[in-house]
Amino acid sequence: MIPTTTTTTTAKSTLASLTDCIAPQLAAVDARFREELNSDIACVNTLVKHVSRFRGKMLRPMLVLLSGRAVAGAGGGAGKELTDAHVTIATVVEMVHMATLVHDDVLDEAELRRKGATINHLRGNEAAVLLGDYLISHSYHLCSSLDSQFASRVIARTTNQVCEGELLQIDNRNNLDLDEETYLKIITLKTAVLCATCCLLGATFAGATEKQTTALETYGRCLGVAFQIQDDILDIVGDSGIVGKTLGIDIEKQKMTLPVIHFLRTAPAEHRKLLRSLIAAREADKVDRIRNLILPSTSIEYARDRARGLVDQARSALTELPDSEARRVLDTMAEFVVTRPM
Amino acid sequence: MIPTTTTTTTAKSTLASLTDCIAPQLAAVDARFREELNSDIACVNTLVKHVSRFRGKMLRPMLVLLSGRAVAGAGGGAGKELTDAHVTIATVVEMVHMATLVHDDVLDEAELRRKGATINHLRGNEAAVLLGDYLISHSYHLCSSLDSQFASRVIARTTNQVCEGELLQIDNRNNLDLDEETYLKIITLKTAVLCATCCLLGATFAGATEKQTTALETYGRCLGVAFQIQDDILDIVGDSGIVGKTLGIDIEKQKMTLPVIHFLRTAPAEHRKLLRSLIAAREADKVDRIRNLILPSTSIEYARDRARGLVDQARSALTELPDSEARRVLDTMAEFVVTRPM
Repeated sequence: MIPTTTTTTTAKSTLASLTDCIAPQLAAVDARFREELNSDIACVNTLVKHVSRFRGKMLRPMLVLLSGRAVAGAGGGAGKELTDAHVTIATVVEMVHMATLVHDDVLDEAELRRKGATINHLRGNEAAVLLGDYLISHSYHLCSSLDSQFASRVIARTTNQVCEGELLQIDNRNNLDLDEETYLKIITLKTAVLCATCCLLGATFAGATEKQTTALETYGRCLGVAFQIQDDILDIVGDSGIVGKTLGIDIEKQKMTLPVIHFLRTAPAEHRKLLRSLIAAREADKVDRIRNLILPSTSIEYARDRARGLVDQARSALTELPDSEARRVLDTMAEFVVTRPM
Repeated sequence: MIPTTTTTTTAKSTLASLTDCIAPQLAAVDARFREELNSDIACVNTLVKHVSRFRGKMLRPMLVLLSGRAVAGAGGGAGKELTDAHVTIATVVEMVHMATLVHDDVLDEAELRRKGATINHLRGNEAAVLLGDYLISHSYHLCSSLDSQFASRVIARTTNQVCEGELLQIDNRNNLDLDEETYLKIITLKTAVLCATCCLLGATFAGATEKQTTALETYGRCLGVAFQIQDDILDIVGDSGIVGKTLGIDIEKQKMTLPVIHFLRTAPAEHRKLLRSLIAAREADKVDRIRNLILPSTSIEYARDRARGLVDQARSALTELPDSEARRVLDTMAEFVVTRPM
């Protein structure tokens, strides 16, 4: 990992302040996003507008652009600048990510609806299925505008894996015996593979060496897994005022998270038994009771250690690259994953 | 259109008997389909097996292969045989079609669920969303294995349009004032564009001239629209024992079909008023009453004429191609669309 003096201070700042060196490209991503999704059909555009509620921190486009910049801008690779292909790919991965969010929303709504269906919810559900399809279709469409099949092939392989991860996850919902290995497989497929792909494509299109590409791919994969584990931790220990969303959702949805998996493997038999019955329970104070059970245990610390280890691995991988502002930002982003309060 | 002596007789036979000249390729499509969808994850394979319940008549792969054969096999184009790319594309379009069927199923289940939700239905719904995503992802993945981006670009443009058609359709559900132009736009985007793409890609990859490609694209588009109109007609006049599925579904779902649109435009004011109230009604005998209202009118005949006109247009387009067995089969398929009892 890279010992820079700026790391600790900027880790506390938001990601937004880190994007100066790729600001024009991020603006171009935004424009290309809207351009690609624009339709001749009015009702399609109306629906696409709702997509904005899923827009996030542009983490994945940042990974594409910073990986490219870390190779090209640093005089490495073929010494090239960021290309238009980088903007295209950054837009593609954002669309892919948003398509998964929109369809996740369908799955989440399905959950909610178990407790009481309304027609409006269902109509929203139908539109969400189609809107997700529209996004994923346009992501491939945009990607196929590139000169070679390479990115299309990598993106499609990645979305294959994302689907596998999602399917493996719903297959294991309510599975209190889920082992850590399968859990890691799920979050790797669901989240980390796309992050790795962002870095791989950013690097490749900047003319990276094989070593640099592998390093950045490792960085992206470790970052993605760590990010997901941190999400798990925040779901239990987070302050909902800061995180900005309802917490305890994973618990509520009986989705197995790393602290829970560790707890069910290591806590005293009595506690394990209690957690099992609480997870299956429907009481209103269930989430609080589960928190109070897990917080004093070693399971949060265990998950933190795993996330920290992955962040260290991600940062170490970056040493394969020459020093540059982009590399420093990537390094800060990795640190931010485990220090972020949200 | 092509006046052949075989047309009328074979029109009555099933499509299955028409595929002799492309039998090895259709078998290869089947194998490639299973190979592409195979996963390392057991639960994914279990789910993929359920896809078989959506497998159909392989109409779209047939369009790819026959279009290719009509150009290549007839000594036209570059005089080439069907290539491996044809098998790939035929598999891709079948996957795209099945993905839309799987997601349509989600939308249909949503409809059903308006009348009473069960947990099983909802779980099935989640799996269906992800299974559809898995299919569409693999279709692009397989397509990106081809040498050039051409097919990927065309396929993605097509799926963009399919999504637009679906979105336009749900936007117009329950719209009793839907005009014929918008209706035609919906079915063109939803159904006909994919058929046109099948023919276009089949022809292009066989080295067709621009004229031949345009002719086959026209054939596919007209065939697709006619097919959908015939579906509309069968929903009202069909014999459910022969058609093999519940009829009156479009009526039940308040989906506007061509006979209904025509009726609401042309029938006596009294009858129009009655149909409007019946469509909105929830009575058990609603479907029968609507049938009894529409059957004696001119609206079924009007829809038949429209379908017949499109089939004639499709058959005329084929005259641009040299005579061949494949061309004769395409001609028979077009005729079959309006004579089929199912």
